[in-house]
Amino acid sequence: MDRVRIYDATLRDGTQGEGMSLSVEDKLLIVGRLDDVGIDYIEGGFPGSNPKDREFFELMRKQPPKHSKLVAFGSTRRARVKASDDPGLRAIAQSGAPAAAIFGKTWGLHVREVLRTSLENNLNMIEDSVAFLKAAGLEVVYDAEHFFDGYRDSAEYALETLKAAARGGADWLVLCDTNGGTLTWDVVQAVGDVMANVGTPVGIHAHNDSGLGAANSLAAVRCGATQVHGTINGYGERCGNADLCTIVPTLELKMNKRCLPEGGLHKLTELSLYVAEIANQALNETSPYVGKSAFAHKGGMHVDAIQKNPLSYEHVDPKRVGNRRRVLLSELSGRSLILDKAREYAPGVNKDSHEIRRLFDELGERELQGYLFEGAEGSFQLMLMKAFGKHEELFHRVGFRIIVDKDIEGRVTSEATIKIGLGDRQVHTAAEGGGPVDALDTALRKALREFYPEIRNIHLTDYKVRVLEGADGTASKVRVLMESTDGQTLWGTVGVSENIIEASWQALVDSLEYGLLYKKARNGNAGK
Amino acid sequence: MDRVRIYDATLRDGTQGEGMSLSVEDKLLIVGRLDDVGIDYIEGGFPGSNPKDREFFELMRKQPPKHSKLVAFGSTRRARVKASDDPGLRAIAQSGAPAAAIFGKTWGLHVREVLRTSLENNLNMIEDSVAFLKAAGLEVVYDAEHFFDGYRDSAEYALETLKAAARGGADWLVLCDTNGGTLTWDVVQAVGDVMANVGTPVGIHAHNDSGLGAANSLAAVRCGATQVHGTINGYGERCGNADLCTIVPTLELKMNKRCLPEGGLHKLTELSLYVAEIANQALNETSPYVGKSAFAHKGGMHVDAIQKNPLSYEHVDPKRVGNRRRVLLSELSGRSLILDKAREYAPGVNKDSHEIRRLFDELGERELQGYLFEGAEGSFQLMLMKAFGKHEELFHRVGFRIIVDKDIEGRVTSEATIKIGLGDRQVHTAAEGGGPVDALDTALRKALREFYPEIRNIHLTDYKVRVLEGADGTASKVRVLMESTDGQTLWGTVGVSENIIEASWQALVDSLEYGLLYKKARNGNAGK
Repeated sequence: MDRVRIYDATLRDGTQGEGMSLSVEDKLLIVGRLDDVGIDYIEGGFPGSNPKDREFFELMRKQPPKHSKLVAFGSTRRARVKASDDPGLRAIAQSGAPAAAIFGKTWGLHVREVLRTSLENNLNMIEDSVAFLKAAGLEVVYDAEHFFDGYRDSAEYALETLKAAARGGADWLVLCDTNGGTLTWDVVQAVGDVMANVGTPVGIHAHNDSGLGAANSLAAVRCGATQVHGTINGYGERCGNADLCTIVPTLELKMNKRCLPEGGLHKLTELSLYVAEIANQALNETSPYVGKSAFAHKGGMHVDAIQKNPLSYEHVDPKRVGNRRRVLLSELSGRSLILDKAREYAPGVNKDSHEIRRLFDELGERELQGYLFEGAEGSFQLMLMKAFGKHEELFHRVGFRIIVDKDIEGRVTSEATIKIGLGDRQVHTAAEGGGPVDALDTALRKALREFYPEIRNIHLTDYKVRVLEGADGTASKVRVLMESTDGQTLWGTVGVSENIIEASWQALVDSLEYGLLYKKARNGNAGK
Repeated sequence: MDRVRIYDATLRDGTQGEGMSLSVEDKLLIVGRLDDVGIDYIEGGFPGSNPKDREFFELMRKQPPKHSKLVAFGSTRRARVKASDDPGLRAIAQSGAPAAAIFGKTWGLHVREVLRTSLENNLNMIEDSVAFLKAAGLEVVYDAEHFFDGYRDSAEYALETLKAAARGGADWLVLCDTNGGTLTWDVVQAVGDVMANVGTPVGIHAHNDSGLGAANSLAAVRCGATQVHGTINGYGERCGNADLCTIVPTLELKMNKRCLPEGGLHKLTELSLYVAEIANQALNETSPYVGKSAFAHKGGMHVDAIQKNPLSYEHVDPKRVGNRRRVLLSELSGRSLILDKAREYAPGVNKDSHEIRRLFDELGERELQGYLFEGAEGSFQLMLMKAFGKHEELFHRVGFRIIVDKDIEGRVTSEATIKIGLGDRQVHTAAEGGGPVDALDTALRKALREFYPEIRNIHLTDYKVRVLEGADGTASKVRVLMESTDGQTLWGTVGVSENIIEASWQALVDSLEYGLLYKKARNGNAGK
């Protein structure tokens, strides 16, 4: 199996994305995980550009990654400075990183308008800069910025820039589609021409501005490129860089290329989640291979077929990338699915069992009312527990009151009071909040805290409101979906009512019941 | 310029996406917008499958789209039933839609395991079913399900199924990559083979499971396909369908194909936002062409270069797809757009006018807070009226209180009290409602009724809640969008707050102000 080297640019190019910013600590955590998965190269930052990146390289010197090669990033020397006097190149040479990536200009437009120098001097800048870093003992990746735009403008000059880098001793020539606008067949043509004219190994660095980041990277590999640049989850400026979480599985599973060490591919879904978490980015649920919905099936017909033969509606086995198949509970799915889930509680149950029939009726009725269990596995599990007598109530006999007040000066306040029975005691308490649901959430947690101290580990991570039957205006029903975590797992819960407070209350109570009781019930079962 | 027909599957295949569900009312709104942009075909749903889709086709019969062709979807006849007796095909023929799309099996695996019939009978099913719909006078699109998987299994049989559809009289043969797993060069090979062997026009229906939805669609067009299926924003099962918002601009701007009528491409960004709002889906900010970040520049170097020459870091001009360049940290754009709208109130105004600059600042600030004027033309017009002194207040000095009470028996009640100044009077009243927002709406109308009797003609037609910054749970900000009508026109209004009641209040007040005052102001102007 041929080897393709994977080059991660999340820490540098990835942070050019809108809303992306990583602390030094964040970067160290991400390096640890990339190293563990077995990424070949990790682009750490510009050691010459700012104190944050300098600190990062200092820390990395003390604990270099085990598998991955750390790469210091920068550009070719300035137009009128010797390479050995260029502060950026010197900082790279002194960074302690075993590899460097420097970008240079391919496109006449940029040489003239951005660098304001001659085409000839640009070639010297490329050759000198690479040679300086090679002499300093580094592996050198030459990034040909705007390669495909430059190639379209003048194929001859574009190839000259690559040859200059090769003369300087570059280990890799990486063709960058910096604006992300190149079409796949133009990538194929240009990479083919480069392979025929230059002997140095070639890489591809694609962006996603035309939605072709993955396609262009794969096409370049098919034409002979052996290094692929990208970022985890496709983070990056504008529409992002090519997404390694999409490209690596296709290379390994469909193109017979080896990218990661044995076992690395299985860690990909976890890597995607981890980096999103550290970078504080919302997950893209529909991402190929690693998204939450990537192997989720909804249509009744598909669900039947999937159960007959997974190949029929799945292009790869989700387990190979550490993801899993999810059959969504919806109006379209049937009794056999519920049965599968029920067997967890009552192994001997069959589809004519009394409990299953009742559960099925209840599910149908709730869906008619507007409940949607496909994002609310927590609420569904509680229904199952109730059906099989495994459920216990968190509290009983509850009452609450919410007051939202807007005074004549425009100030708005929200207060909730709550009264609940806990065992033989009654707790009556109150709290304020940013809005009515927040006040209710705060008051409920306050009431339960003494009995369930572990409630402090449970947090809401998402809160969604969907108005059903919009045509009734503000008297419409609403569906509330909440997502919660205890730091180890995620679960969703649902509530439906004409009253948004009541709908939120249902989802909130399910969230806490599931978080506090379900694990206990499961552990209890597991112990038997 | 060659013509490529665009086939939108948002209403049917799009709703297979996790968390996607559209009411009949939602579908009608989306059809109106797709028609306006100039999409050729709109797949409406399965008329034979459920009452919701039947109702939709009934309504469409009364008001068919002006430009687009409505398509009724279904499958080939059952294995042992005559086409003319097949209830699904009969429902399509009777739906009133001028075109039909039916899918049939290409892949032996599916014929045997899913249909449980012979390869020979499958060919008859395809031919008969197409012929039946042609005889009923419909344009027929034949969707070859799993075409590429089937072709890999047996190219010969895959071509036989297309020939059967052609014999039945199909107008289009659409090659579906149902599992989304096919690589671009395999699409090229198969489409080339089909073009060489079958005379009927060919289409492509791609999914995004390998991140190649756009690449595969474009490659098929390059090989001769002249119809492209996809959905707005790429909604659809698993990783979604091919995204028309990515594909159409590339076809028009880079491949010299005409897809939309003159002016259609400019409406694309607005279409993407509109469908997301109606479907209550979070926007993907990094979507090619139409995403909020698609032309957002962050890196200092890039920003400099962009200002020297936009071509240097932009693959196309954002205006061509109705999007705009955003230079992050220093908002510079948008002024000319506001100017256009402001000229309605003050014809002589220019971009350096004091009012325009202030308006621009206010708009920028409100957008930062989470306001979105895309679906809220009413609120935007009120801002303009205020800026040009054309606005009068409906009432002044308001205070309200809302009480939601859940008693120990589980009964939930909502009451609103409200105190407003109307001229020199003060009105203090109260009302109950199905939920807190409904109670507030009812109380406000009650207070205003005597002064503005025409308020009875104004009704809310839609109410949507979007939680912003989901990661803060119930303390997140929410954006409320309301849509209202006076029986003659529709308008949208928006409110944003941490408190859902306050956000709803803002949208509600804007809705009534716009409904009661805007027409008066406009009529006043028109009368001069």
